[in-house]
Amino acid sequence: MIDIAIVGAPGYAGAEITRLVAGHPKFRPVILTSAAAAGRRVGDVYPSLAPYVDAVYVEFDAAVIASRCKVAFLAVPHTAALEIAPVLLEAHMTVIDASADFRLKDPTVYEQWYGVAHTQHDLLAEAVYGLPELDRSTLPGARLVACPGCYPTAALLAAAPALGSGIARADRVIVDAKSGVSGAGRTPGPGTHFPAVNESLAPYKVTSHRHTPEIEQGLSLVSGVETRVVFTPHLVPMTRGLLATVYLDLAEAISDADAVALYRERYRGEPFVTVHEAGRMPTTLEVRGSNRAHIGIVVDQRAGVLIVACAIDNLVKGAAGQAIQCANIVLGIEETAGLDVPVPVV
Amino acid sequence: MIDIAIVGAPGYAGAEITRLVAGHPKFRPVILTSAAAAGRRVGDVYPSLAPYVDAVYVEFDAAVIASRCKVAFLAVPHTAALEIAPVLLEAHMTVIDASADFRLKDPTVYEQWYGVAHTQHDLLAEAVYGLPELDRSTLPGARLVACPGCYPTAALLAAAPALGSGIARADRVIVDAKSGVSGAGRTPGPGTHFPAVNESLAPYKVTSHRHTPEIEQGLSLVSGVETRVVFTPHLVPMTRGLLATVYLDLAEAISDADAVALYRERYRGEPFVTVHEAGRMPTTLEVRGSNRAHIGIVVDQRAGVLIVACAIDNLVKGAAGQAIQCANIVLGIEETAGLDVPVPVV
Amino acid sequence: MIDIAIVGAPGYAGAEITRLVAGHPKFRPVILTSAAAAGRRVGDVYPSLAPYVDAVYVEFDAAVIASRCKVAFLAVPHTAALEIAPVLLEAHMTVIDASADFRLKDPTVYEQWYGVAHTQHDLLAEAVYGLPELDRSTLPGARLVACPGCYPTAALLAAAPALGSGIARADRVIVDAKSGVSGAGRTPGPGTHFPAVNESLAPYKVTSHRHTPEIEQGLSLVSGVETRVVFTPHLVPMTRGLLATVYLDLAEAISDADAVALYRERYRGEPFVTVHEAGRMPTTLEVRGSNRAHIGIVVDQRAGVLIVACAIDNLVKGAAGQAIQCANIVLGIEETAGLDVPVPVV
Amino acid sequence: MIDIAIVGAPGYAGAEITRLVAGHPKFRPVILTSAAAAGRRVGDVYPSLAPYVDAVYVEFDAAVIASRCKVAFLAVPHTAALEIAPVLLEAHMTVIDASADFRLKDPTVYEQWYGVAHTQHDLLAEAVYGLPELDRSTLPGARLVACPGCYPTAALLAAAPALGSGIARADRVIVDAKSGVSGAGRTPGPGTHFPAVNESLAPYKVTSHRHTPEIEQGLSLVSGVETRVVFTPHLVPMTRGLLATVYLDLAEAISDADAVALYRERYRGEPFVTVHEAGRMPTTLEVRGSNRAHIGIVVDQRAGVLIVACAIDNLVKGAAGQAIQCANIVLGIEETAGLDVPVPVV
Repeated sequence: MIDIAIVGAPGYAGAEITRLVAGHPKFRPVILTSAAAAGRRVGDVYPSLAPYVDAVYVEFDAAVIASRCKVAFLAVPHTAALEIAPVLLEAHMTVIDASADFRLKDPTVYEQWYGVAHTQHDLLAEAVYGLPELDRSTLPGARLVACPGCYPTAALLAAAPALGSGIARADRVIVDAKSGVSGAGRTPGPGTHFPAVNESLAPYKVTSHRHTPEIEQGLSLVSGVETRVVFTPHLVPMTRGLLATVYLDLAEAISDADAVALYRERYRGEPFVTVHEAGRMPTTLEVRGSNRAHIGIVVDQRAGVLIVACAIDNLVKGAAGQAIQCANIVLGIEETAGLDVPVPVV
Repeated sequence: MIDIAIVGAPGYAGAEITRLVAGHPKFRPVILTSAAAAGRRVGDVYPSLAPYVDAVYVEFDAAVIASRCKVAFLAVPHTAALEIAPVLLEAHMTVIDASADFRLKDPTVYEQWYGVAHTQHDLLAEAVYGLPELDRSTLPGARLVACPGCYPTAALLAAAPALGSGIARADRVIVDAKSGVSGAGRTPGPGTHFPAVNESLAPYKVTSHRHTPEIEQGLSLVSGVETRVVFTPHLVPMTRGLLATVYLDLAEAISDADAVALYRERYRGEPFVTVHEAGRMPTTLEVRGSNRAHIGIVVDQRAGVLIVACAIDNLVKGAAGQAIQCANIVLGIEETAGLDVPVPVV
Repeated sequence: MIDIAIVGAPGYAGAEITRLVAGHPKFRPVILTSAAAAGRRVGDVYPSLAPYVDAVYVEFDAAVIASRCKVAFLAVPHTAALEIAPVLLEAHMTVIDASADFRLKDPTVYEQWYGVAHTQHDLLAEAVYGLPELDRSTLPGARLVACPGCYPTAALLAAAPALGSGIARADRVIVDAKSGVSGAGRTPGPGTHFPAVNESLAPYKVTSHRHTPEIEQGLSLVSGVETRVVFTPHLVPMTRGLLATVYLDLAEAISDADAVALYRERYRGEPFVTVHEAGRMPTTLEVRGSNRAHIGIVVDQRAGVLIVACAIDNLVKGAAGQAIQCANIVLGIEETAGLDVPVPVV
Repeated sequence: MIDIAIVGAPGYAGAEITRLVAGHPKFRPVILTSAAAAGRRVGDVYPSLAPYVDAVYVEFDAAVIASRCKVAFLAVPHTAALEIAPVLLEAHMTVIDASADFRLKDPTVYEQWYGVAHTQHDLLAEAVYGLPELDRSTLPGARLVACPGCYPTAALLAAAPALGSGIARADRVIVDAKSGVSGAGRTPGPGTHFPAVNESLAPYKVTSHRHTPEIEQGLSLVSGVETRVVFTPHLVPMTRGLLATVYLDLAEAISDADAVALYRERYRGEPFVTVHEAGRMPTTLEVRGSNRAHIGIVVDQRAGVLIVACAIDNLVKGAAGQAIQCANIVLGIEETAGLDVPVPVV
C-alpha cells in the first residue's frame, strides 16, 4: 500500500480524493490536513466516510507528511500550492496538485488572470499537465502534476480531436459551459445558498473566468495555432455535473458519422472516454459519480459548425478522479485502479 | 369584462393563460376546453386555481364558444390550430394562437420543419407575429396573432438590437439556450421523469429543433440579411425559466457600456424588458413567474464577440404572458393589464 | 394609500412583505430599513422588485419612520422587536411584528426557549396573536400584532378544529413537519449550501425547535387542555413550502367524511383555507406563492388516529402574507386585499 | 464467478442490481430479462452501465436462465414473482426476490392489501424475509429470499431495538416516512413528472400503502405483541433517499444516551448500520448510493416519546443493495462483498 497525504482535505475536491483513496486497492489515506477542520474527525464532517476513514484532520506539517507518506494530493486554493509543493518535492514526495498554480505554463499569463506573481518558475517548467487523454506520455515518473480545471477538462476533451485533426479552424472557439454548484466549493455564500440557486440558471464570470487561458493553452498546443476561446460558464441548479457545449467552425464539410469516427479513432483505447453514436448527446446524469467523459457530436451542416458536447462529473473527472488517474499513471499502477466502479444509474 | 375561451386549457400553457385571465381586470374565463379532461373541474386538476375558476373543462365546440366568447386563446399542439383558427375567425372571434401553426411566414418552411402541409395560406399571410417588443404596430385590431415560441422570444430579444443596429454581423448567430422542464409540457414521458431529469443537464434536438427557423425568420427580418442560426437547446433540472446565451460576431469594436446603451435605447419604454448594467447577467430566478425579459451584455473584446443573455419565464413571457400581452394590445387595453404583479423573490 | 415601513427589509420575509406591499391596492412601501444593506437599491438586491420599488435601503430611524409612515412591518430577528416595537408604538404607529418576540404570552416560556429575558411584559400582554382563522375578532384596531411562526400556522390550522370540537384528545399531539429551505432565511450557511441540501432530507432541532411552545400555547387555548406537542421539523430540498402532518388520537370513531365535514364547517367562509375532499392530501406546490392553507384529512380507522396534513407557503401564509392579512384586518381593509392573486400552476 | 440472472432488469431496482452485480467480485451478470426492453443493449438504456455490462435485454425464458445461471434476482411487479419463482426454484436455482410477493407470511393479509390471491402458499411458508439486521440466521442456504420493501427496511431498523427491548410500547407505532421519487419506479406518470414533483412535498396513500402490513408483521415479530402501525409516506423532490421518522411511546423514562447505547448494542457488529451519537440526526444525503442505514435518536422527555429517524438509500439498502447483501449471506460469501465502496460525499 502507498501512503497518501491529502492537503486541504475537507473541501469537496479533497473529500472526493479522500473517498477515492479510501476505495483504492493500492492507496491508503494516512494524513489529512486542514487548518479550519483540524481536530475534527473525518467521519464527523462527512458521515459517509466514517466507516472507511478513521482519522482526524490535522494541521499541515511538511516534515510529518514527508516522514509518513510517499504521495501528496493538494486540494488547496491557488497560491497555497506555490508554498506547499516545493517543500514536499524537496522531501522527495510525489505531488499531485489539483489547484491552479502549475497549470499555466507562462507565468505572466498566471499573473494576469490570477492577480498574483508566480513564485516557482522552475517548478512550473517541470510540472506536467495532467490530462492523460491528451498526452499521458509525460506522466510516468513525474514529480509534480498539475491537474486541469474542471471546465478545461471538458472543453479540451470536446475540442481537441477536431482541432488536432484540422477539420475545424482553431483561431476561435466558443465554449458555452454549464456546471453544478459543487464546482463552487464547500464554502457557503450568497451564490450557493439553496433558495438563490434553485430554479436559477445564470451565466457568471463571462469573459473573465480563470479557466479561459487554460483552455486556450491546451487548444493552442493541440492545434499549433494561437486559439482564442470565448468562454461562458453557467451555474445550474444541480449538485454535480459539468457539460461543455463547444462550437467549432468547420474547415470543410464533414458528415456526422465521419466526425464521430474521427473522435472514436482519437480516443480509441481510452478507458474513461465514450464517444456516442452520431446524434446522441450526453447527459451529466450518465457520468454522475464516475471518472468518465461522454462526448456527443452533431454537425450543423447548414452553418458549417461542429457542435460537440462533453459531460463529466466536475468533482471526479473534473477534479478528484483525474488526480487519482494521474497518480496511477505516475506511479506505474493500473490507470483505472480505484476508478472503475459502476455508478448509480440515477 | 371580455369573455374568454381557452382551447387546450389543461396543458401548462393553457393553465397559465387560465391563471392570468382569472387575475386580469378585464378578462373573464368562460369556456375552457379539453378533450382529455372534459368533465373534470378545473380546480381538481389544478387545486391552486380552484378559488378563482369555478368551471369544468368541456369538449371543444366552436358554435358554443363563438356564441359566448369574444376572444379565444389557443394552447393546442401544432396542426390543431390550423383546424380551429379558421372556424373561430369565421365566427368573428379574435384568435390569439400560442401554437406554432402561424409563426412561420413561409408555408414551405413550416412543412419542412413540422413535416405536415400548411393548409391555411391566407390566414398565414394575415397572421401577426406577436412579439410586441420587436413590432407592436401591427397588433392593434389584429384578428389572428401567432405568439412566438419560448426560445424565439428570448433569442430574438437578445439578438435583435445588435443585428438591427448593424453592430454585429447577421449572417450567422449562435444561440445556446437552456430551458426548464415545464417547456416540455404537461404530458409525462421518459425525458421528463423526475429521476431522469434531476442532476441531469442535457442538450437535445441539436440542429433539429423546430424553433430554429422561427429565430432565423425573426432575425432575418430585423437585420435585412438572411441569418443562419446555430441553435442548441438544453434541458435543465428546474421547472421554469429559459435563458438564451447568444454569441454575435461584432462588426466593429464596441465597449460594454456602449453596447448596454444601445440596447437600453432600443428597449426604452418597454414595460417588460430590463437591460442590466454592463457585466451584470440575468438569472432565470429573477423573472420566475413574471412576464419580464431581463438582458445582460458582455463584450469579449479579445475575440470580437458580443455575448448577450436573455432570461425569461418560459411559461409566461415565453407563452401565456405573451399571449395576454398581445391580447391586451389587440383589444386596446392597457398593455400591462393583468401582467404587472410583483412575483415572489425566490 | 397607506404609507408603510418595513424594518429588516432585505431578508426573505421582509422582501416578500415588500413584494406584497408593492402589489397591494392600498399600501405603499415608503421606508425600507436594513443595517447590512443600507445604501443599496432594492432592485439591485432583488432584480424582480426593481420595476415596482424604486427605493434604497436605509438605516433604521424611528423618528423618520414615524414621521412618514402609518404602519410598520417588523421582519427582524427575535429580541430586535423588543427594542423597536415600543418606540414605534410610542409614536402612534401600528406595528405588525413578524418576529417571535410577542408570540408567547408567558414571558417565562419565552425566556426558557429563546434564552433571553423578555423586557416588554406590558406590550406582550397587549399584543394580539395574528392567526385570523383561529380568532380574528381581536385584530381590528390592534396596535401590535404578533404574527405566528410558519410551523405554528400550519400545525394550528391542522389541529385546531379536531381539538376544539373534542373529537380528538388534546393532551398529546404529534406534529411531523417539513419545510423548504427559505424558512432558514437569507443568510448562507453550511446547512443551506446547495450541495448540502440537494438530495438531502433531514430532521433538525428535534424536540428543541422554538416553535414548539407556540404550537402548544395555541392548541391549549383551543382545547382548554394543556397540550403537549411532539414536534419534529425536517428540512426538504425545495425553496418554498411547508407541510405539517399532524397525528391526533381520536376520542371516538369518526368517518373520513364526517371529519372533513367538521373541518369544512369550522373553516366555512375563510378566504384562504381549503379543506380537501376526504382522502385527498394537499401538496406544497399547489399553494406555492399564495397565502392559502390547504388541508387534507384521513382517518386511520384501525388505529383510531386522525391524520391531518396542512400545506402552506412558508414565506406567504407562514410569514409575509399572513402579516399583510393581519394588517388588512387591523386597518379595516378588505381582508384579501393584495393577497388574492392566482399563482403559477407549477 | 457466480453467474447471475436479473429478471425485470431495466427498472430502477433491476438496474441497480445490475450495477452492483457488475461491480461485485464474485458475481457476473449473464442474463438480463425484460419484456419491454428486449433487444435493446443495456448500455443504450443506461449509458453509465455501458462500460461494464456488454449485454442485451432478452425475453424471460426459465429454461435458458436455469441452464446458464445459478442465482436469479427478481425485480418484477408483484404477482409476477408468484409465476416466476416456482419455475426457477424447480430448476434448482437460488431466487432472491425483490418484489412484494413473498414478504407477507399470511396469504390472507397479502390478498387483503394487494387485491389478488396468493397462489404459492408452500413457497410463502418457505421464503426467508431478507432483513439481515433483524435475523440473518435463516438466510444461509435459503432457496427463496423475500427482500423487504424500502419503507419497511427503514421503519423496522428504526423501531425494532426499542420494541424488542421493551423500552417502548408495541401496540401502536407512528411511522412518518419520506421518500425520493425513484421509489416510484422508472415508469413516467403524472405523479413523477418533474414539474409536478419539484417544489412539491406531498403525503400519499395515507393509511393505504401496501408496506403497512409488512411493517406491522416485522414489528409484531420483534415485540411479541400485535403492533398497529400508522404509516404516512410522503413524496419528496429528490431522486434518492428515504427517511422514516418513527414515534414510539416509551414504557418508562430513558435518557438520550441510554437509548443510543441500547441501539448501538443491538446493532453491534452490523456492517451497514450506524447509530449516531445522541441528538445527531441522519440525512438521506449521507447514505446516498450506499447500502448503509444511519439512525438518529432523540427522546422527547416531556412527552415520553422516543423519536427515531432512519435514513437509507431507497434503491440500495431499500432494494438492490439489500438483495445483494442477502445473496452474499445465502451463498456464504463475505456479507459486504460488492457493497463496501465509499460513496460520493455530496
